[in-house]
Amino acid sequence: MFSVNAIAATSATEPLARTTIERREVGPRDVLIEIRYAGICHSDIHTVRGEWGEVAYPLTVGHEIVGEVTEVGAEVTKHAVGDRVGVGCMVNSCRECDNCRAGQEQYCLDGATGTYAAVDRDGTITQGGYSTHVVVDQDFVLRVPESIPYEAAAPLLCAGITTYSPLAHWNAGPGKKVAVVGMGGLGHMAVKIAVAMGADVTVLSQTLGKKDDGLAFGASDYYATGDPATFEALRNSFDLIINTVSVPIDMAAYLGLLRLDGTLVSVGAPPEPLAVPVFSLFNNRRSFAGSSIGGIGETQEMLDFCAERGIVPQVELIGADEVNDAYERVLKSDVRYRFVIDVATLRR
Amino acid sequence: MFSVNAIAATSATEPLARTTIERREVGPRDVLIEIRYAGICHSDIHTVRGEWGEVAYPLTVGHEIVGEVTEVGAEVTKHAVGDRVGVGCMVNSCRECDNCRAGQEQYCLDGATGTYAAVDRDGTITQGGYSTHVVVDQDFVLRVPESIPYEAAAPLLCAGITTYSPLAHWNAGPGKKVAVVGMGGLGHMAVKIAVAMGADVTVLSQTLGKKDDGLAFGASDYYATGDPATFEALRNSFDLIINTVSVPIDMAAYLGLLRLDGTLVSVGAPPEPLAVPVFSLFNNRRSFAGSSIGGIGETQEMLDFCAERGIVPQVELIGADEVNDAYERVLKSDVRYRFVIDVATLRR
Repeated sequence: MFSVNAIAATSATEPLARTTIERREVGPRDVLIEIRYAGICHSDIHTVRGEWGEVAYPLTVGHEIVGEVTEVGAEVTKHAVGDRVGVGCMVNSCRECDNCRAGQEQYCLDGATGTYAAVDRDGTITQGGYSTHVVVDQDFVLRVPESIPYEAAAPLLCAGITTYSPLAHWNAGPGKKVAVVGMGGLGHMAVKIAVAMGADVTVLSQTLGKKDDGLAFGASDYYATGDPATFEALRNSFDLIINTVSVPIDMAAYLGLLRLDGTLVSVGAPPEPLAVPVFSLFNNRRSFAGSSIGGIGETQEMLDFCAERGIVPQVELIGADEVNDAYERVLKSDVRYRFVIDVATLRR
Repeated sequence: MFSVNAIAATSATEPLARTTIERREVGPRDVLIEIRYAGICHSDIHTVRGEWGEVAYPLTVGHEIVGEVTEVGAEVTKHAVGDRVGVGCMVNSCRECDNCRAGQEQYCLDGATGTYAAVDRDGTITQGGYSTHVVVDQDFVLRVPESIPYEAAAPLLCAGITTYSPLAHWNAGPGKKVAVVGMGGLGHMAVKIAVAMGADVTVLSQTLGKKDDGLAFGASDYYATGDPATFEALRNSFDLIINTVSVPIDMAAYLGLLRLDGTLVSVGAPPEPLAVPVFSLFNNRRSFAGSSIGGIGETQEMLDFCAERGIVPQVELIGADEVNDAYERVLKSDVRYRFVIDVATLRR
């Protein structure tokens, strides 16, 4: 074990603070990563505040991690010292179940091991990326193409794959009309990726406040969901709706926007169940689905896709001591569009 | 206009009674059908009792209609006098919208015209099949293959297509595990059709009371949903669940039965919204969908499929004066598995 600088929560209510945490020694199949940047995801806030269940403190969160390989175990073949790499929302899985063998480790039937706040296969509690170093099994480490700037790569590891995976799975592409609900960290990535896939993209946001950005990202339309006329104007319009908001929405209204065989996919997770009128699903044979990040292979595919197409998240860089302020701004949707911690500020 | 014998509801609370109703003269594209048998669908009961909204009385219901063509209009090309034909849940649609042009008339964006209690294109209220004759546009009349007995053909027009369509759309077939929730009129058809398609079928019924029937219909397993152990034993098992019950179900429990990319399709419609926990959809990337009957082309395909495979519903024949008793028995699930009115008893 060795100690590294980190930022941790000590309770559900205290501000995050600088501390040190322990990392395991680099095992034969492990990679030691010197973290350069770590993105701030809304899930981090839910987790440290205990909103998704009890967690053990102190806890370091962060699952949008990029950095450089500085050491590899004896059996490591996939990565080498000096490589630019990333780690997303999971760091292990059983590797034996049907889902793991299908390359869908995020749906591991034994439970994928989250990058933080999860019990790892060795019994320890995983600790996330708001720290200077992390040790990860090589199979859960991604290659970050040279053409993606380090700081911009970080949000791809969660916000990028979380939106890429359902867009790819439900065939966003030429001739398809896609709506993105919410223009936050996930939503702005969904717009950029869906546009790059060739789909016709409409943003549905509470207000028109970010309309210029949305159109600049390639959306062809932008509507305010605060205006009931939106739901009339867009009835029976979309093949696919990606819902990135994590508060309950009026399901009858949103499902009404789907055309024949359309699907509304939620990637944001309100803790309370959503009320779904079955008649809204009957019309147009609609579906309501969920999607959770993506498999390791698909995450690599997403990184390569973004590199080829020049897709980069819009980020706002902060120092280690600005994390608590950043959390407050995330909760007010006051960020365009993802906070990323410059981990260099944690080394001192 | 001409009068025909029928059974009608005069209010939401009075028993149905014999009466006469008016049918339109046979137009150039119309077919006059002498009805032989009419099935009783749970929807009939919901409708006459005003449970799905206000209706105009007197009202004759029935949308599982089979009989013989006795007259055709001058422009009719699809049917001839003497043909065995059927009429299902709709008798018209706009024929111009995207969905109609895609052969999905049931999802007509202008609203398909229901076989009863709907405002037809000529402004009259449609009247259903509990009567001796009906006049229907040739495009909404199906051919009933000779090998299907008349009385057994009736339930195919609603219960048959309502289950065939989602089974076909979601690719029930060899290698797929399908669960059917509910062993009533729809459920027993779902089992027979899914088995004929080559799927491995499990019945999920409240009790094991109909287990022998389920296995005789070809199901490989039969579980009681009243036993919580069922939901543990079958976790992550099914590619497709066809839910035929029209009361709310515990969505977390049923969604938990779906394996990777599985879909739960509701064809039964509780009036109240269902509470769907989004985390249940995240796991295994599950979908919750709705499906409503099927298109005219697909209904013909279903009839031909059932004729080829020898699939026939189990019916209990009743006379015109037994309809009210039959309704009470449907509400108690005391029918194996579909009541069919012998319309000969209405001619006297």
